[in-house]
Amino acid sequence: MNAIQRFGGVIKVKADKLAYYRELHANPWPEINDMIKQCHISNYSIYYRDGYLFSYYEYSGDDYAADMQKMAADPKTNEWWAECVPCLEPLESRGAGELWASMAEVYHLD
Amino acid sequence: MNAIQRFGGVIKVKADKLAYYRELHANPWPEINDMIKQCHISNYSIYYRDGYLFSYYEYSGDDYAADMQKMAADPKTNEWWAECVPCLEPLESRGAGELWASMAEVYHLD
Repeated sequence: MNAIQRFGGVIKVKADKLAYYRELHANPWPEINDMIKQCHISNYSIYYRDGYLFSYYEYSGDDYAADMQKMAADPKTNEWWAECVPCLEPLESRGAGELWASMAEVYHLD
Repeated sequence: MNAIQRFGGVIKVKADKLAYYRELHANPWPEINDMIKQCHISNYSIYYRDGYLFSYYEYSGDDYAADMQKMAADPKTNEWWAECVPCLEPLESRGAGELWASMAEVYHLD
């Protein structure tokens, strides 16, 4: 059993694309949820407030980079991202290679 | 077994109080964590990015309002809040009675 790793991220959503982004995520394609689970990600939530989206998920695998590569190589996931990514506006302060800007954990209580 | 309710929130932290807020939350008082658990809150994380704090937690009780009242009546919790709250700057857009502004769930995958 691997320790759970938690990930938090933030990104802006374009005002004129928010409704479409919400619609997509209210009815995610089954293949997308399946691939996320195959990549050992669970308890995944995305929240909205004041133009920003916030993500939280838990990773239970033992090779995060490899699982992310697996997801990025999946054709259906790429179709999904082709719908989602144009709705988003990454933070200027994000790290190199980031789409969603990673957040730093300040507190955690199991 | 009650269904888990998930809560996301956002607030600003004052730049000159961030270090102190982080220090408090890196070493939370045991009574604070105990009271949070007694109030049926678990898997509680707070993240920081670019002047903002983001919270995520899960509630497994059957009366959220009553549990929040219990927490608010706890003397040690009030001592803790007296340290934390002056570090914070609530969003102008927050709802009536909110300190942390609630976020809307856009997506969830168990």
